[in-house]
Amino acid sequence: MSGNSFGHSFRITTFGESHGPSLGVIIDGCPPGIALSVEDIQPDLDRRRPGRNLLMSARKEADAVRILSGVSEGFTTGTAIALVIENTDQKPKAYDDMSRVFRPSHADFTYHQKFKGFRARSGGGRASARETAARVAAGAVARKVLVDLFGPAAVVVAWVDRVGDLTASVDPAGVTHAAVAGQGDIQCPDPKAAVAMAALIDEVRRDRDTIGGVIGVVARGIPAGLGEPVFDKLEADIGKGLLSLPAARGVEFGSGFGGVSMRGSLHNDPFVVAEDGRVVTTTNHSGGIQGGISNGMPIIVRVAFKSVATHFHTQKTVDEDGTAVELTAKGRHDPCVLPRAVVIVEAMVALALVDHALRHRAQVGVFPF
Amino acid sequence: MSGNSFGHSFRITTFGESHGPSLGVIIDGCPPGIALSVEDIQPDLDRRRPGRNLLMSARKEADAVRILSGVSEGFTTGTAIALVIENTDQKPKAYDDMSRVFRPSHADFTYHQKFKGFRARSGGGRASARETAARVAAGAVARKVLVDLFGPAAVVVAWVDRVGDLTASVDPAGVTHAAVAGQGDIQCPDPKAAVAMAALIDEVRRDRDTIGGVIGVVARGIPAGLGEPVFDKLEADIGKGLLSLPAARGVEFGSGFGGVSMRGSLHNDPFVVAEDGRVVTTTNHSGGIQGGISNGMPIIVRVAFKSVATHFHTQKTVDEDGTAVELTAKGRHDPCVLPRAVVIVEAMVALALVDHALRHRAQVGVFPF
Amino acid sequence: MSGNSFGHSFRITTFGESHGPSLGVIIDGCPPGIALSVEDIQPDLDRRRPGRNLLMSARKEADAVRILSGVSEGFTTGTAIALVIENTDQKPKAYDDMSRVFRPSHADFTYHQKFKGFRARSGGGRASARETAARVAAGAVARKVLVDLFGPAAVVVAWVDRVGDLTASVDPAGVTHAAVAGQGDIQCPDPKAAVAMAALIDEVRRDRDTIGGVIGVVARGIPAGLGEPVFDKLEADIGKGLLSLPAARGVEFGSGFGGVSMRGSLHNDPFVVAEDGRVVTTTNHSGGIQGGISNGMPIIVRVAFKSVATHFHTQKTVDEDGTAVELTAKGRHDPCVLPRAVVIVEAMVALALVDHALRHRAQVGVFPF
Amino acid sequence: MSGNSFGHSFRITTFGESHGPSLGVIIDGCPPGIALSVEDIQPDLDRRRPGRNLLMSARKEADAVRILSGVSEGFTTGTAIALVIENTDQKPKAYDDMSRVFRPSHADFTYHQKFKGFRARSGGGRASARETAARVAAGAVARKVLVDLFGPAAVVVAWVDRVGDLTASVDPAGVTHAAVAGQGDIQCPDPKAAVAMAALIDEVRRDRDTIGGVIGVVARGIPAGLGEPVFDKLEADIGKGLLSLPAARGVEFGSGFGGVSMRGSLHNDPFVVAEDGRVVTTTNHSGGIQGGISNGMPIIVRVAFKSVATHFHTQKTVDEDGTAVELTAKGRHDPCVLPRAVVIVEAMVALALVDHALRHRAQVGVFPF
Repeated sequence: MSGNSFGHSFRITTFGESHGPSLGVIIDGCPPGIALSVEDIQPDLDRRRPGRNLLMSARKEADAVRILSGVSEGFTTGTAIALVIENTDQKPKAYDDMSRVFRPSHADFTYHQKFKGFRARSGGGRASARETAARVAAGAVARKVLVDLFGPAAVVVAWVDRVGDLTASVDPAGVTHAAVAGQGDIQCPDPKAAVAMAALIDEVRRDRDTIGGVIGVVARGIPAGLGEPVFDKLEADIGKGLLSLPAARGVEFGSGFGGVSMRGSLHNDPFVVAEDGRVVTTTNHSGGIQGGISNGMPIIVRVAFKSVATHFHTQKTVDEDGTAVELTAKGRHDPCVLPRAVVIVEAMVALALVDHALRHRAQVGVFPF
Repeated sequence: MSGNSFGHSFRITTFGESHGPSLGVIIDGCPPGIALSVEDIQPDLDRRRPGRNLLMSARKEADAVRILSGVSEGFTTGTAIALVIENTDQKPKAYDDMSRVFRPSHADFTYHQKFKGFRARSGGGRASARETAARVAAGAVARKVLVDLFGPAAVVVAWVDRVGDLTASVDPAGVTHAAVAGQGDIQCPDPKAAVAMAALIDEVRRDRDTIGGVIGVVARGIPAGLGEPVFDKLEADIGKGLLSLPAARGVEFGSGFGGVSMRGSLHNDPFVVAEDGRVVTTTNHSGGIQGGISNGMPIIVRVAFKSVATHFHTQKTVDEDGTAVELTAKGRHDPCVLPRAVVIVEAMVALALVDHALRHRAQVGVFPF
Repeated sequence: MSGNSFGHSFRITTFGESHGPSLGVIIDGCPPGIALSVEDIQPDLDRRRPGRNLLMSARKEADAVRILSGVSEGFTTGTAIALVIENTDQKPKAYDDMSRVFRPSHADFTYHQKFKGFRARSGGGRASARETAARVAAGAVARKVLVDLFGPAAVVVAWVDRVGDLTASVDPAGVTHAAVAGQGDIQCPDPKAAVAMAALIDEVRRDRDTIGGVIGVVARGIPAGLGEPVFDKLEADIGKGLLSLPAARGVEFGSGFGGVSMRGSLHNDPFVVAEDGRVVTTTNHSGGIQGGISNGMPIIVRVAFKSVATHFHTQKTVDEDGTAVELTAKGRHDPCVLPRAVVIVEAMVALALVDHALRHRAQVGVFPF
Repeated sequence: MSGNSFGHSFRITTFGESHGPSLGVIIDGCPPGIALSVEDIQPDLDRRRPGRNLLMSARKEADAVRILSGVSEGFTTGTAIALVIENTDQKPKAYDDMSRVFRPSHADFTYHQKFKGFRARSGGGRASARETAARVAAGAVARKVLVDLFGPAAVVVAWVDRVGDLTASVDPAGVTHAAVAGQGDIQCPDPKAAVAMAALIDEVRRDRDTIGGVIGVVARGIPAGLGEPVFDKLEADIGKGLLSLPAARGVEFGSGFGGVSMRGSLHNDPFVVAEDGRVVTTTNHSGGIQGGISNGMPIIVRVAFKSVATHFHTQKTVDEDGTAVELTAKGRHDPCVLPRAVVIVEAMVALALVDHALRHRAQVGVFPF
């Protein structure tokens, strides 16, 4: 098993390389009776798609999804759902002169070592961020399941929280998809930060360089009780999903790294009974998860993405024979993946939540409250 | 499956609550022929044990481990290894008056919601950090496997990197277990920081409060090739293991959150051929993992732990009936778990590495270099 | 992962060798709120226990089970349940002179080959049928879950259906535990066959030989809907569980091997609506499973067990060096395991059913009818 | 997880219904560096294909396989291999009037119950034997891995061993693919039995009825050491794979059901040292597996298949509303699936063997001998 699956009770398995004929995903364990059509999935794929504007790479992919199985007369049947996306813009040629060179901070060297020299040398192969299209397609299905289980209040919203040293001011308790989309392609709901981030990315692009940042994500409308006591804590599985994204270098929940200097007497979230009778906390330093299990408050996560490895400065490296070479990237590449990563981050969080929702139902049978 | 297992090819399954008769672990998939005795495991358990000095809780646990199966004539047989540790210092009484109260930022409320009111009300039950003793015991076995596979240079070393706002200066490339242990129980190899951290923890204890921090951990002597391309990237599985630790709120690899503002032209790690013929990188912003797979450089991770939830200030909260109550903790509790968490972090990293080493061997059959 | 776990949503993991200090099981995924005490488990262990009468081996094991975790105030808490059974009658000495000899049709040779010569040479180690005690303990918990989910009509009853060439006449639709236990230790509810079987086993024992047979098992009161469409068909998972039993050489469902010569027009089970409104079949050649999923009719299975490998005739074989040797078994061994296997077979069927019940609940959320 | 995956280290996940656009499989964990092209897979698919002669259904499927990922420049890369087969002969119309009727001994009723009424009503959907095409495609890859690991002597050969009451005489130690294919489409290497079986199937077809039988299968050239001690015994996982096939009702290993009346002194297989120094057994009642682990002798299995549920006699049944109806099947259906099942059985055995070979390599690292 070389790691192409994610989830236990709601499990996805993906395939596909950047320059093969297609990529896709099999979803195993989806509840029956959920209305599902291409229209539910395509919008998320469009949010991930490159080439939408000047901030991004001009590579064009239609990314049109097809449903091959698991849906009948518009509803899921409970059997394996297969989704496939054609690669319509394969240009293996553009990458050829790099094919035996280990591009710095790419996966060329590690794949070469791991797989004894057998690898797709064109365009990153399985290591290409293109594989995330399959995750996004599956994530769109997961969203539908969340709403089916918990109602329309169950939403997962991500945003660009930081680019370089520019940080947005965003309230996880209230941020909406509309607000995130409303500031242009930058996907940052803080208008002032959005402008500055767009300018910074443009500057970086003109420097033929790349830059990283942080995505914030919140899940609201999720009941208390999702997650497991020991190894499969909710933050462990959400964190795993997010750390499996290309270029992700860190993840934090609630108060995160910054919160370690808060004393316990301040950090603890007091419980009170809300007007609707539910037990809630008056603060949410825990980020909605306590003891590995959701407590009904917004689940708040941040993911760090390093700068993209493909920039256009000349770099020193070696090839498969160990010969020192210089390489200069060609083609079109994003100076900053953050805006496109927003929907990918949402997908991974939604997938982890649905998996834990179904796991909870297996063991306990009913959802709390 | 409620999450008591970790790993795919080298899989551990744990049991046990803070106030039950014992806790333990079954290790499934350990290679045969590895010399193993209680003496290999006990030292790590002793490093985790509370009550060693004034920095820590005075609760005393002998934490003596027994091997119940899987070892014959001093060597592992390839069958299930069971390790068990008696709970010799159960004092359920000390916790009784809190038993129906939801302690803030503990797992009382979430367990209560998840499991429909059925839970071990004494001492945290399965949510107690006491369960980590089983992880440490298994981690000691994982260390032996690492050395068996990769030789004595394969080491996992963790240290207290930060307490509150105090940060140590530590070189991951060179830090040793001896250096970590050499500054007293604080487990910080930076002598100056160690003194300041100990003073801070003592101050926090006198304030009847608690404080968090960051553990740094490095794995050296690990060959290139461990990890999987998509969901089971090495950082995803190490990250999951670490985020499953009680009080862990974040994890980062290599340049981490701080590195997101580095431009790609600076962040990329150039490849060169070392004197011994191996391909290495001249910098290590990647933290030893590229494309989800180890590249042979030191694997560098940092884990954020929030302040412990049990402090001795009076707190407002509610009980199972939703009645507002005030609670003041009794008993003995650590003001800061960081020093004891060092060996636990090492255990989780070692477990994830061994699992991926065996997974690699399944698919590819030989280790690179 | 060397195969010490069984199940997906209700998963057991076992440990222990015949001559180690103890054996046991961790149950992961048990629903919370199920009343559970030693008294629920011990009777099944007593049914498995050797030494009850002259039909069986005189080796004595108290087989007293202890609950180490997962139960609080008499109810399951949803966390890992650990059950442990001491080995009180270890007599490694009795086996010593065989320790380097490959006993024919035992696991000595295959373990030796697989594990590179590292193995517990005393008494079969992990290959000893003694490991089934852990399965029986877990199976007793599974029975409680079945009743909790489906009511008291949910029962799993096994019986000795054949010994050598002697076959019983038993109606799966009506057979009870009382009827099975009522003919003495032979565990065959057909009085006439029971007498003949007991006589045959006694004859075999006097011949210092061993004999095999077939166990029949039925699960009643199980609703339609358990099982999965493709690889995890209900018969596939029940079959796997049964084929994992020591000495099991075959399994069949419903009409089984004998039914292959029935034409489709006779074999098909017509559907009708019963008086209570449920859709039932007028015959049950399908054995209660259609398309891999239970149909609400009795689930009927038969398992073939070969004769025990340890008999008291002198045998030719080789030792670890390849030297030809003669061996004659010592100690006490059952001439026929069938009577003791009855409760073990029930355990595996109950475990598979509970696992599929919880898996169904994960995906679909409610039980049909 | 609704059971669309098989295997642990070499894991396949399938999708597809009889009347959807396509079906396929993702293979996860395939070793890198194995030469693989469509030509390696298509011949097995052709052996499974219907419509080859009068014995079989005239439904025509080209069953042309495409490789979508995981192969580069003719060699596997170690990443997910996706294989897809178009459904070119969808005729949903032919089945329409049965769509709300529960066909006896089909999966219509159980799917309807399990999935709350959501199901592909046309042509059996996921329950159609058409899904086995994906297994066969994956099995062809597994064969290549077996040869890569163990050399060209590693073969899996199946044959029609019995149809109705007609039983062939076949020597598992010597039977070849050529011999099986040599008697026409009946796939029985015993010429005399082949003729009788073909005549019987023809008679059954003229009676507008169906008939079952038994497939025999042998794996030769497999080293000692594959399989796991407890739950994942080699016969348990091979058995699970075979019992997951449509219409499979039983499986037996070595002496099987017939061997239970053999006394231990006759059944035990004596060990001797062969001329090449290997330890072998002089008889093979164990069917090549002892203690759940292969012993290097031929692995011998038999699988019982019931008569196909679709015959052309008029049958009484009920529809989704519980109304009693009569139905008469239309379309074209095989009177006997046995000849086509031969390659499917081989596929499942090869898949289980490769999975256990890789699992062994994970834990022990080298193959015995």
